[in-house]
Amino acid sequence: MPVGLSDQMPELFPVAGVRLSSVRSGIKKRPGNDLVLIELAEGSRTAAVFTLNDFCAAPVTLAKQHLQATQPKLLMINSGNANAGTGQPGMQAASDSCRIAAQVIGCSPEAVLPFSTGVIGELLPVAPFETGVPAAVAELSANGWAAAARGIMTTDIVPKAVSRKLDIDGHAVTITGIAKGSGMIHPNMATMLGYVATDAAVSLPLLQRMLREATEDSFNSITVDGDTSTNDACTLTATGKSSLPEITDAQSTAYQQLSDAVTRVLTELATMIVRDGEGATKFITIRVEEAETKAEAKQVGFTIAHSPLVKTAFFASDPNWGRILAAVGRAGLKDLDLNGVRLYLDQVCIVENGGRSPSYTEEQGAAVMKQAEITIVVKLARGKEATQVWTCDFSYDYVKINAEYRS
Amino acid sequence: MPVGLSDQMPELFPVAGVRLSSVRSGIKKRPGNDLVLIELAEGSRTAAVFTLNDFCAAPVTLAKQHLQATQPKLLMINSGNANAGTGQPGMQAASDSCRIAAQVIGCSPEAVLPFSTGVIGELLPVAPFETGVPAAVAELSANGWAAAARGIMTTDIVPKAVSRKLDIDGHAVTITGIAKGSGMIHPNMATMLGYVATDAAVSLPLLQRMLREATEDSFNSITVDGDTSTNDACTLTATGKSSLPEITDAQSTAYQQLSDAVTRVLTELATMIVRDGEGATKFITIRVEEAETKAEAKQVGFTIAHSPLVKTAFFASDPNWGRILAAVGRAGLKDLDLNGVRLYLDQVCIVENGGRSPSYTEEQGAAVMKQAEITIVVKLARGKEATQVWTCDFSYDYVKINAEYRS
Repeated sequence: MPVGLSDQMPELFPVAGVRLSSVRSGIKKRPGNDLVLIELAEGSRTAAVFTLNDFCAAPVTLAKQHLQATQPKLLMINSGNANAGTGQPGMQAASDSCRIAAQVIGCSPEAVLPFSTGVIGELLPVAPFETGVPAAVAELSANGWAAAARGIMTTDIVPKAVSRKLDIDGHAVTITGIAKGSGMIHPNMATMLGYVATDAAVSLPLLQRMLREATEDSFNSITVDGDTSTNDACTLTATGKSSLPEITDAQSTAYQQLSDAVTRVLTELATMIVRDGEGATKFITIRVEEAETKAEAKQVGFTIAHSPLVKTAFFASDPNWGRILAAVGRAGLKDLDLNGVRLYLDQVCIVENGGRSPSYTEEQGAAVMKQAEITIVVKLARGKEATQVWTCDFSYDYVKINAEYRS
Repeated sequence: MPVGLSDQMPELFPVAGVRLSSVRSGIKKRPGNDLVLIELAEGSRTAAVFTLNDFCAAPVTLAKQHLQATQPKLLMINSGNANAGTGQPGMQAASDSCRIAAQVIGCSPEAVLPFSTGVIGELLPVAPFETGVPAAVAELSANGWAAAARGIMTTDIVPKAVSRKLDIDGHAVTITGIAKGSGMIHPNMATMLGYVATDAAVSLPLLQRMLREATEDSFNSITVDGDTSTNDACTLTATGKSSLPEITDAQSTAYQQLSDAVTRVLTELATMIVRDGEGATKFITIRVEEAETKAEAKQVGFTIAHSPLVKTAFFASDPNWGRILAAVGRAGLKDLDLNGVRLYLDQVCIVENGGRSPSYTEEQGAAVMKQAEITIVVKLARGKEATQVWTCDFSYDYVKINAEYRS
């Protein structure tokens, strides 16, 4: 079961200018909805980031092309088929599905952004869109966030959604977002997806910058197994329906406040994905401090987070500091002095001066490791930068899920 | 059980100028020998490579210092304790153990190279060397290779040794080597170690070059879990006792012949480590062809080899080409055209033109995957360079071994 997550959805505030729906169109072989629409009001601006995997799916390629042409009016997500590894016929299917949706809602095909998640290597069927899209359009609702969060799930155990209201310069602003994913890639059931919207007005360059920065500290700071998907995508839409004047200056307090709030929403969504990681029994925060640069802090954090030896030790609740220190040692930092490095499990110092801390007892370590949520702190003694990454442990169930899963 | 390996040792030819022994000194808590000596005749030359992990063990640091001072007369390996993460007291213990051995065999302490493998973070006891070294010296024998191969084992299931005789310019030359290791790092039971000797005479710079090149294509081309140890080391000794004149020219056919043979011996030892990988049920060769550079070929090979998703798929005998292609896609190659990439499982083409090959059937893939030894071939369509890396699958037993192992 997910670590510290329940199936209970929090209250999700509507975002003026956004309507959503979720229906079953027949794309997915398993039961459940498989087609989600997110309609964006005229004047909305949408920023997007996509997977860096060179093996990217047809909808990713097409969505990027569409974003070059115009701002989107509709985000269309299907689950059950990733439309990846499908060559030219896959591009055609993605394109056809957008044309169908464009006809129904009355916009250009380029104003539809397609997203797919599910089986890799099977052609996306177009027929389900013919009946599914009209049905979904009929159900569009400002209160559709919860249904949409469930509709984009594949092997996720729980839906993931976050909603916040804040006050910026006396104006009420809402941010609501949903995400899916439980490995960075699910083999055949792939992908991390995130859709976040606010009713604030933000110029497009600033919105793109806000999303890029927020993604760096959230979705790009988590790992379940180090694999990145063919279909990963995250969008941030600003509808401009709130009374807050348009944000056009990155130095303004309004930008900073909104950016901080968006980062918190994305971080919460991202850590939910880790908590629902395949086979996860522990949620691990790895905080790296006293680094020369944030980049090297992240490098150390991910080297620890990707180590199967560290992850299996956490599964076993074994405070195995040798494995953590060995991961720090092979992270590739130039002129790293291991003797200066200190390691903590929560508040307990376990390593200093190149070896086990004299004050450390196995009982202290065992007490921390018994918890479902644990923080590893690495102090590098090199500088003042810090960052954190999040991961989960590596359990029998991870192997089971990934070995036994058949498309 | 190891893939395609038996407990049966092949015939191991003595190398003139090398005597070995293995005894129980009491360092290891489990039963079995724990102290191995390899005595090298006067005039021998020894090249060495060590772990690149910044968190390297005391014996690694000391062995490097000793190699700066003089050529070794004795290689001394203890199992049961890695003497890593032990700070200054660990350096003192390593130093004391060398002094004890130097007194017994009558050489300077710098002529003793120490190696340790076993538990991390516990101080190496010196007392066992006081009684163990004299006992081991008394048993030194030219026929001690098999005993030494067993004496350096920790969690290895089978001992690893290879021996070859070759003819160079009408002179008989022998190469014999032993190795240990079954994860790249065993947490608390650490390390990959290799000791290879030949009776050929080779100048020290050429010997070092030969070892570096051979290591690149062997020990540095394998991975079990991507973790590198604090104690990894490999030595190559040339005793000069054969009738072959000293090799001093890297362009000579003698150098090339010996270098090729040494590379083959190291490759065989390295692949034995993978076959004995923790929990391994499959031995996987990943051959990357048509790369621009050998470095990018290796990068692609290791990205596939480290992917938990690929490894669990192989455990399940699932020909999951989407996972392999996704790993190629995220290997970080500049301007990679995925549409040009072809993937083969043994001889079966499974991917071309960005998707599943039209000629491919699931039955073909299943037939290949049923085997215990499988070759993945990736053709990048970028150039003429090629390389291969070796790995094993990821099984329940990998998690079990690494989760349940307690120091």
